[in-house]
Amino acid sequence: MSLDAVLSRIDTDLDASLDRLLTLLRIPSISTDPAFKAHCAEAADWLVADLQSMGIAAETRPTPGHPMVVGHVDGDGPHLLFYGHYDVQPVDPRALWDRDPFDPQIQDTPRGKVIRGRGAADDKGQLMTFVEACRAWKAVHGQFPCKITFFFEGEEESGSPSLVPFMKENAAELTADFALICDTGLFDSRVPAITTMLRGLLGEELTITAADKDLHSGMYGGAAINPIRVLSRIIAALHDDRGRITVPHFYDGVPEISDDLKAQWSELGFDARHFLGGVDLSEPAGESTFSALEQIWSRPTCDVNGIWGGYTGDGFKTVLPAQASAKISFRLVGDQDPLVIRENFRAMVRSMLPPDCTVEFKAHGASKAGAFDTSDPAFEAARQALSDEWPDAAAFIGCGGSIPIAGHFANMLGVTPMLIGFGKDDDQIHSPNEKYDMESFHKGIRSWARVLSALAQK
Amino acid sequence: MSLDAVLSRIDTDLDASLDRLLTLLRIPSISTDPAFKAHCAEAADWLVADLQSMGIAAETRPTPGHPMVVGHVDGDGPHLLFYGHYDVQPVDPRALWDRDPFDPQIQDTPRGKVIRGRGAADDKGQLMTFVEACRAWKAVHGQFPCKITFFFEGEEESGSPSLVPFMKENAAELTADFALICDTGLFDSRVPAITTMLRGLLGEELTITAADKDLHSGMYGGAAINPIRVLSRIIAALHDDRGRITVPHFYDGVPEISDDLKAQWSELGFDARHFLGGVDLSEPAGESTFSALEQIWSRPTCDVNGIWGGYTGDGFKTVLPAQASAKISFRLVGDQDPLVIRENFRAMVRSMLPPDCTVEFKAHGASKAGAFDTSDPAFEAARQALSDEWPDAAAFIGCGGSIPIAGHFANMLGVTPMLIGFGKDDDQIHSPNEKYDMESFHKGIRSWARVLSALAQK
Repeated sequence: MSLDAVLSRIDTDLDASLDRLLTLLRIPSISTDPAFKAHCAEAADWLVADLQSMGIAAETRPTPGHPMVVGHVDGDGPHLLFYGHYDVQPVDPRALWDRDPFDPQIQDTPRGKVIRGRGAADDKGQLMTFVEACRAWKAVHGQFPCKITFFFEGEEESGSPSLVPFMKENAAELTADFALICDTGLFDSRVPAITTMLRGLLGEELTITAADKDLHSGMYGGAAINPIRVLSRIIAALHDDRGRITVPHFYDGVPEISDDLKAQWSELGFDARHFLGGVDLSEPAGESTFSALEQIWSRPTCDVNGIWGGYTGDGFKTVLPAQASAKISFRLVGDQDPLVIRENFRAMVRSMLPPDCTVEFKAHGASKAGAFDTSDPAFEAARQALSDEWPDAAAFIGCGGSIPIAGHFANMLGVTPMLIGFGKDDDQIHSPNEKYDMESFHKGIRSWARVLSALAQK
Repeated sequence: MSLDAVLSRIDTDLDASLDRLLTLLRIPSISTDPAFKAHCAEAADWLVADLQSMGIAAETRPTPGHPMVVGHVDGDGPHLLFYGHYDVQPVDPRALWDRDPFDPQIQDTPRGKVIRGRGAADDKGQLMTFVEACRAWKAVHGQFPCKITFFFEGEEESGSPSLVPFMKENAAELTADFALICDTGLFDSRVPAITTMLRGLLGEELTITAADKDLHSGMYGGAAINPIRVLSRIIAALHDDRGRITVPHFYDGVPEISDDLKAQWSELGFDARHFLGGVDLSEPAGESTFSALEQIWSRPTCDVNGIWGGYTGDGFKTVLPAQASAKISFRLVGDQDPLVIRENFRAMVRSMLPPDCTVEFKAHGASKAGAFDTSDPAFEAARQALSDEWPDAAAFIGCGGSIPIAGHFANMLGVTPMLIGFGKDDDQIHSPNEKYDMESFHKGIRSWARVLSALAQK
C-alpha cells in the first residue's frame, strides 16, 4: 500500500484536519472540575461521531467519572491500540491567558505557526495526529492499515480514577500487540523520540487545622499557633540543603544511572542553560550532584503544586487563619513504591505537628515509574519511520512526566507500550497560553502514517 | 443634669437603637475591596443623616479613599472627640458563615442574645453605643452634655491611608481635650476596661517569582526552582525554635515588663487554657519564656495572615508555579520602629533568595505601639463611671491589637486618647459569624452615658 499517497493526502487535507481539531478544542473538557462534567461528555461524543464518520465502530462507555471512548476496526497484521485523552487541565490563572483558552486560534509567531488554546498540545492535538493519519489512510486505501483499537480517556488530568477498573473489566477487548500512546514530546525540533522511561507520580493534599475558626491576630497573635507557619516548616523540611528529599526511606528503589545511559544522554548535547533559559531561569535547582537532564529524567522529585491559607484577597486582613493547605506531588523513578512513600510522608508530617494541630490528607493518585522494553524489532522500525519524517534521527529518551497508563498496559495486560509524541518544551502545557506547533501537528500526522506503515508490515 | 433619666431613656429606646444598628449593618462597607466602594459611601451618608437627625452639624468629607464623617455640637465643659470606624472586614471564607453576613439578626444563644453580622462588634455596634448615648442625652435634656466632635473613618480595616493626611489638614478642628475611641473590649463579661497599651502593626505582602510562567512539574520538576518552597523556607526561618522572631534587630526597643505590671496582670486571673480553649486550642504557642497574657499584651509577634501560590482548586494539577505570595504582619510593642523593621525584614528575605528568584514587596501600613498616659483625673472618673455600670470594677489593661489612631491623636494633635469598648473575646471579629452581645450594646450605651456625665463635670 502506498505511503506516499497517504502523506500527500495528509498535506492536502491539512486545513480540514485543523478545523476538526479547533472544533474539539472549543469544548472545555476540564476533567478535574465538576462544573465541566457535561463538556467532558460532549468531547467524548464528538470523538465517537468523528470515528464513526470514518466507518469505525465507536461508542462511549460510562464510568463512575467521565466516559471512555472505545472504537475498533478489524484488519490483518499486528493489533495496535492507540491511547489518548480528551480531557484538559484547568485554565487558571485565567488572567495570564492572552485570549479565551477555549477559543483556539492559529497564530503566526517568529518560530512559525502555532495552534493556541487549552488542550492544543495536551492532549487533543496529539490525539488527533493519530486520528487524522488513520483518516488519510482510509481515504486513500479504502481501509485501515491493520487491526486498530482506539481508546480515549477523559480523566487523565485528574488522576484517572476509572482507568484501572475499566481496563480490568475490559481486558480482553483492550489487549493488543502494541499500545501506541501519544502524550509525550520530541527531543527537540529536529529530533523525534520514542520515550522509554517515565517517572511515576504520587499526589498528596494536606490541610493543617489549628483553632476552630479564623482568629484576630491582634487578639490571639503570639499565643495561638499559626497553621501557615506549621505548614511552611513542614514544606521547608521536605528537602535538605543539597536538594535531597528527607521523607524517610524515600530513595529506596531509586536505581543508579548506568554509565551507558549517562554516555548516551551526554551525547544528546542537552543544554541546561538553554532549557531553563526558555522560562527565564538559569540554574538547575535540584540535587547538586546530578546534571539537569539526570534530575529531570531519572531522579525523583518533590514539588509543591499549590498552597493556600488565610486571607488572599486585595488589601490586608490581620487574620490568624484556622487552616492552611497544600498540594504536593512526588515524581518517582525505578522501583520506588508510591504507597510506601505516601505512608512515610504522612508519618513524617504527623511527627512534625505541634500541639493543637491536626492534619487531614487527601490522596491524588499513585503510580510507579516505568522503563519499557524496546527489544521488539517494531521499535527499531518505528524509530526508522520517525527518522524518515524529521530532520535528524529519532532517539529513545527518558521523560520527567508520568503517564501511568503506559505501566498499566505493560503490567496489567502484557501489552508493550510505545510512546511517541510531538510536543515541544515550550508548549506551555498545564500553563496559560498553551500551544501546539503547526509543525508538530502536521509532521505528527505524517509521522503516524509512517509508523503505521512500518508496523503494519511487521 | 439627671443621669438616671438618660439611662432610663436608653432602656426604653433599646429596640429603636437596635433597628438603627441593623440598618447600618446591612450596608456592606468593606473598605479593602474596591468592589464595595459605593457601599462605604452609603454607610458614611447614613451616619451623616443619623447625626443630622439629632441636630448635629455633620457632613462627609472626601479623601482619596473612603470619606470621613465629621460632626460637631457645641457645649460647655471639656471638648470630647469620639472616634469610630464604619468600614468592616471582608467576609471570606464566606462558606463558613451560617447566614448572609450583611443580613444581620438578633439571635438567642445559651449565653444570651447576640447581634450577628459583619461589623456587629467591629466597629459599627461599638460606634453606635456612643451615638445612642448622645441621642438619649439629647432626648432627655434637649442638649448634649458638653462640646462633642464626632469623627468616623471608613478605612480602618484597610490601613487608614487617608487618616494622617486628613488629621494634619484638619488639626485645629479635630483637637479636643480627650479622644474617646470605641474599638476595644471588656476585660471579661464582668470587668469593663480602659485600654492603655496597644501593640503597633507592620503589614507586608511579598511575592516571590521564579520562572516566567507556570511550568509542568514533570517536564521541569527537579531542575526548576519552586517558589512555594522558597517562600516556605523564608516563613519557617522567621521564628527560631523558642518562638523568637529572627529578623535582625527585631527586638530593639522592646521593653521589659515591669514587676508592677506583671503583678497587676497576674491578679487579673487570666486563664490561658480557658482563653485558648474557646477556640479549640490548649497550648500557648509563642515565646516559651512568657505567659500567654504577656505574649498577647506586651510581646511583639510575627504572623502569616495569608499564603497562596500554584493550583488551589479542586482536584490536582501538577503545576510548578511561577510565583508564591504571602501576607505577613508584625505586632509591635514599646519603641520598636516599624519602618526599620520593614527594611530589616526585606533585607532578610532578599538574603534568603536562591538564584533565579526575585521578590516584590507591598507595604500595608506601619504603626508604632502606644502606651498612654492615665494621670489625668478624667481617667479615674471614667473608670468609676464604668465600674458603676458593670458587675466588677473597671481595669486599665493592655491589648494585643493595634489602633494606630490612638497614637496619632497623642503624637500629632496632643490629644489624650481614652480607649473604652465593650467587645468580648468570642465576638469573632475578622472571622465568620461575627457577633456583638446584646449586653455589650445595651450596657455599652449606658456606659457611655455614665462616662459622658462623669467627664462633663470635670
